[in-house]
Formats: sequence, structure tokens, C-alpha cells
Amino acid sequence: MAEAKQLEVPSGFRAAGVEAGIKPSGTLDLAVLVADRNCAAAGTFTTNRVCAAPVRWDRALVPSESVRAIVINAGNANAATGAQGEANARRTATRASELLGCHPEQVLVASTGVIGHQLPMDRLEAGLAEALAQASAEASRFEDAARAILTTDSHPKVVSLRRALGDQSVGLLGLAKGAAMIGPRMATMLAFLLTDARVAARELQAILSEAVEVSFNCISVEGHMSTNDTVLLLANGAAGGEPLRGGDLAEFAAMVREACVTLARGIPEDGEGATHLMIIDVEGCRDHAEARAIARAVADSPLVKTAIHGADPNWGRIVSAAGYAGVPFEERELSLWLNDVPLYQAGAPVPFDAAHVSAHLRARRETSIRLVLTHGSAAIRFWTCDLTAEYVRLNADYTT
Amino acid sequence: MAEAKQLEVPSGFRAAGVEAGIKPSGTLDLAVLVADRNCAAAGTFTTNRVCAAPVRWDRALVPSESVRAIVINAGNANAATGAQGEANARRTATRASELLGCHPEQVLVASTGVIGHQLPMDRLEAGLAEALAQASAEASRFEDAARAILTTDSHPKVVSLRRALGDQSVGLLGLAKGAAMIGPRMATMLAFLLTDARVAARELQAILSEAVEVSFNCISVEGHMSTNDTVLLLANGAAGGEPLRGGDLAEFAAMVREACVTLARGIPEDGEGATHLMIIDVEGCRDHAEARAIARAVADSPLVKTAIHGADPNWGRIVSAAGYAGVPFEERELSLWLNDVPLYQAGAPVPFDAAHVSAHLRARRETSIRLVLTHGSAAIRFWTCDLTAEYVRLNADYTT
Repeated sequence: MAEAKQLEVPSGFRAAGVEAGIKPSGTLDLAVLVADRNCAAAGTFTTNRVCAAPVRWDRALVPSESVRAIVINAGNANAATGAQGEANARRTATRASELLGCHPEQVLVASTGVIGHQLPMDRLEAGLAEALAQASAEASRFEDAARAILTTDSHPKVVSLRRALGDQSVGLLGLAKGAAMIGPRMATMLAFLLTDARVAARELQAILSEAVEVSFNCISVEGHMSTNDTVLLLANGAAGGEPLRGGDLAEFAAMVREACVTLARGIPEDGEGATHLMIIDVEGCRDHAEARAIARAVADSPLVKTAIHGADPNWGRIVSAAGYAGVPFEERELSLWLNDVPLYQAGAPVPFDAAHVSAHLRARRETSIRLVLTHGSAAIRFWTCDLTAEYVRLNADYTT
Repeated sequence: MAEAKQLEVPSGFRAAGVEAGIKPSGTLDLAVLVADRNCAAAGTFTTNRVCAAPVRWDRALVPSESVRAIVINAGNANAATGAQGEANARRTATRASELLGCHPEQVLVASTGVIGHQLPMDRLEAGLAEALAQASAEASRFEDAARAILTTDSHPKVVSLRRALGDQSVGLLGLAKGAAMIGPRMATMLAFLLTDARVAARELQAILSEAVEVSFNCISVEGHMSTNDTVLLLANGAAGGEPLRGGDLAEFAAMVREACVTLARGIPEDGEGATHLMIIDVEGCRDHAEARAIARAVADSPLVKTAIHGADPNWGRIVSAAGYAGVPFEERELSLWLNDVPLYQAGAPVPFDAAHVSAHLRARRETSIRLVLTHGSAAIRFWTCDLTAEYVRLNADYTT
């Protein structure tokens, strides 16, 4: 995880993270991200049919040219909470808009935590007032915000980039959270990106959607799609100058992609109980969808995950997972490398030194799985983590 | 698991199970099931693109009117073994046919165990000769065969039924194995059914395919589809009389379905490391495919499985898994019962006594999850097991 040592905040944004008392643990649990002017805003969201009230609120509002703030709470997902949950999401945005002097529709909201409980609105509203009063442009406040959105994460996940684009110096700051219930499809866990670039909302949405496809849509922990997955990108234009276009816009898109990949990869890297980050490259496919289907089947197989955890080069589990991904292929069209050692070539096993490969698996926190087909040139990189007894322990007793 | 105390063998079949030395543990690892006349034979197989050599061999032969024997080995899956694996499967059938005095195409083969290693043909052939010499109609020989097909199963899985159908007394005997790599789709793990009923192969195939749909296709352990899933049903007609038809054929189909459900349910019941059998009923759906998609998403979620393991009534994990099954629905159309306690009704949480529900989960080995939609009348029952630290331990170190 490339956690920036010197977090650089883009111009025109303020933040804070406070203890609102939503988490029983009494740690930071409410964050605000505030822009000093209207922002172009883009978002991508969970495709789960059971989705959180804040997801419904935001989805109706983005893309937008006039977002002023994002309010995020941890400790409660406000999902599967019925009409009262919807009212609480609206109430959160409304209360923030009153304090900021804008319309409720200029405030986006996000929640993460346990499903099926109503938000404690008295504590949330008190915390919100405190957070908005505290919000400042100091890096430490953004670090507080990054901590306030965490649940079972072991550390905050942040990234900051700065590039000269045309006549502008453009900054981009990103925060993310997530360590379980990670199996995004056309969506992701919570991540927030702020930039002072000047980009129209429509272009911003296209840039974000493309970046999410190769980042947050290419990760999993256990493959369970959340009700709350949300990525939001705000651009306030404070860098000045004309709206980005042409090569500058393309470079900005690359910047967003880099930030998304850094944040996304950090999620399985911090997966609950994980001891290995598994980097799965699937190459030689007809299209990206087929490459991703194979990568996801391999990534989400508990048998593959436990083999990697045990430093066991049990490659039959990997090729058999590829085999049930729903992608048509013949075995002779498939080859496999594990940490750069060829184990299966054109449908037949390759003799290898199992003790050596096992020792290598055990010694490294990163594991590379490379599956190559002979169908075309489409490729994808996917990140996941191994499955450990610690994951089971953490999740066998979470609400009670 | 309804393990028959008095195993009743249908007329006209013999069996044996021997130690061929394929498993390093030196336990029973080679089984033969032999008919004294030509059998109608039906089969269903894995849809995994990486499939075992014995699956390819059998798939080309069934349905058939002239099968004489099935040879099954444990300890080696003969999957992902290339051209040599195919030759070894053919060689196994050929050697058996020489000893039985029939054609190689009258012998079906099946394998289970580790993927990607070549079969030790010398030991297999010696064991095969021994097994065919020993094969007899005694129940104890069938019990040996049931033990010889196991891998990590904790006990053999058998069922025997007898019914009066028309003027015949029809017996049906089934053997199955499986405790992990269980996520069949249009297929299953290894199961073998023998009957002395007189049924034509085409009818037998239709009966088996329908039975597999509501039995082996409705189970999972961790959802990883095997390369070797195979169900075979042999009918030798030794019960005598005319071929079954009309009401008698329907009753025979019910008998096959009952045997398949009993064997299938026994697989997750014996799932590696499992402490709970989870019985998932999905009702009120547009069709069976949608009901099964929801059941499978819930069954295969590590978050649902760990919650049940921890006796944690964390129902948000269940409804959120239903939400990503790919079935369109609105939250208000969904309701959930856990061990008959309503937790979520028409899209909103129901207050409940969490301590009571948790105590009930902890006290019972069976957990009932019932999800009801408002779309139609299609329903399905699905069986899976919880996910435990013991599952991780067992699978983090299997080949090495």
C-alpha cells in the first residue's frame, strides 16, 4: 500500500474526522469532505439489489456539476433499513446543507458497517456539526477523515498525486476503506477522490467509470458484494485555467486510474486475516469480460485461497477454477505460471520443484498467478488475498 | 445422512473395494461395480472446461444400453493430465474389459483425488485384477466399494431403497463421495446408483437428469466446481418383467430422486470442517433458475457461512448475498426467516431476540434459511455447510 508520507491536499477542499459515537468502540467514525465551491461529481455504486439508503441518495444525484460535500459514517451501513433508513440518509444530507448554506441535493452521503440497524441520528447529527466546525485544509484533518471511514481495516488507505497538466498544477487525493465483504461488480467499496482539476461532470464520470473498471472492479476479498459499495470523485476546478481537454484530459484520466489502482490494491492487501496479496494476471483472452470472469473465479475460490495460504503449489485448483468461469476454452489453450514458474503448459502438467515453489510462496507476501489463453490480446490484472483461519475467526463473531 | 444399516443390494450386481496403493495412506482406493448383464446407463458430468480424462471417456459413452462395469479410483483425479491421462483412462477400461470379457466401451471409469498427477498404472492394474476377482453380491463388498471411493470424507455415503413397482420388486443402491471442491453446476461429485429395474437408457437418462437437478445440483461446500463431478446410474433389468412405464416409471423416478437427495445432502453434511448443515429454501420465484441462483449466492458466501459457524444472526449478510445473485427484485419483495424466526419482512428489519436466535443456532447442527420473494411459485431447496477454521487448515496443506 503506497500510503503517502506527505499527504498533499488539492486546493479548495477541507476535511475532518470525529468520534460521533456510532461505533461502540469509541473511535473516529464520522468524516466530512467539503469543497469551497461547486464541484463536478462522478460516482459508481454497488449493483447489489439490496443496496444501502445512501447509495440510493447518491445515485440519483451524480453526475452533477454542483456537489459541495460528502458525509461518511462508519459503524453502521444504513442498508436493509427500509423507509426509515432512506429518511435518515436524506436527513443527514439536509442537516449538512443547512450548516453549509447549500441545498440538500448538493451533499452526498455514504455509510459502512453493520447491515440492518437504524442510524443513531442524534449522535450522527451532533458529530456532523462538530466535524463541519473542525473541517480544515490541513493534511492531518484528511488523515483523520481517512481513519474515520474504516471498519475492520488495519490502517487507513490514502493516495495523493500532483501533476502539471497544461497550465494547471493538478492535485488528486484519494481515501478508501474495505477489508471484507469485497466482491465489487461494476461498483466498489467506499472510496473518495478529490481533485482541484477543472473537468466537466460528464467527462469526469467517463474517466471515473473507466478507472473503476480496472481497479475497484478487479479486486475481491471473499467475493461477497457489499450493499454499500461507492466511489465518488469530486473536481472543484480550483487549479484554475480552462477545463482540461485533449492530451491533458487523457493524462488526468491516467492520474485517476493510478490513484484508483493504488487504493483498490490496498483493499485485498489489508483483507481480513490475509497473509498473501494474490496478483492474478489473465492474458490472451477474447475480451476484458472473459479475462475478468476467469480472474474472478480463481480469486474467489476458497480452495485456491487456502492453497496459497498454505504455500501449497496445488495448481490443479487454479486451472479448475478457470474452467468453471463460464468462458469457453479447450485445455490445450491454457497455460499457468505461479510466481513466474511454469506449472501447466498447453493443457499438460510441467514437472517442477514443488519444494522450491512452496518455499518461494511462503517467503513472499505477494503471489503472482498468471493464466494465459490463446484466444486474443485482452488481458486483466486482478487483486485478491488468501483465506485464513483468522478470516473465519473475525467473521464468525461480528455482530453479536 | 441416512446410512442404511442393512444395505440391500439390487439383483444382478457385484462389487469390491481394494487397496491398490494409489493413496499414500494405504487405505481402500479402488472400487469396482459390476453387472452380470448389459445395463442401461445414464450419467451427468461436470461442466468444468478443465475436466478429467475419465469424464471425457464416460461422457462419450452414455446414455448406453450395454454397460457392464464401473471402475473408480480415489487418491488421484486423473485431471489436467493431458494426452497421457486420456490414455490411462482408456487403458483402465480396456484392462477391465479384458478381465470381464466385454468391450472397453462397456466399462465406465471415474477418478477422484489430487489434480495434475499421472495415475500409477502398474498399481492400478494390479488392484483392478484383485478387485474383479473379489467382486461379489454381498453387502459388505458394496460397503468396501463405498469406502474405496472416499478422499477427505469422514464416512461412506450410501443409500438403498426397495419398492414394489407393477409386478417387480425394484431395488436401488447408491454410493457417493465428496467433502470439498463441491460446487456442481449441471453436474455433481462422484455418485453411483445401481438398480435392477428394467428401464430403457433414454428414459433412465431423463430420470437421472431431473433427479440431479434437485439434488446434486443443489449442494455446495465452498462452491469450487470440480473437474471430476460424475453421477452414473446403471439399470440391469434383473428385477424382471416388462420395462417400467406410466405410473410405475414415475414412481421409479421418485425413488431415484429420493436416493439422489439423500446422497447429495450427505455431502455438505460431511463438508470439510463443517459444524452446521445449512438448508436454504428459496420460494416465491419466477422460475427454478432464479431460485437456485439466489440459493447458490447465499450458500457460497463466506460471510454467510462464517456467521452461521459463529451462531451469529447477522441476517444482513444473507439478504445482501441474495441481492447480488443476478436476479432482479426490489427489497420490498424479499423476506427472510432464520430457523423459522422472521428477521426481515418486505424489505425492512423485524425486531427479534438476538440472544435467543443465536442460542438456537449454536444448539442445532441444522440451520434453516428461508428466503421468500413475491414473484411466483417456483421454489428450490439447497444444502451447504458453514466455513470453519478447520476447513482452512485442511485445505492449506493438501498436496505438499
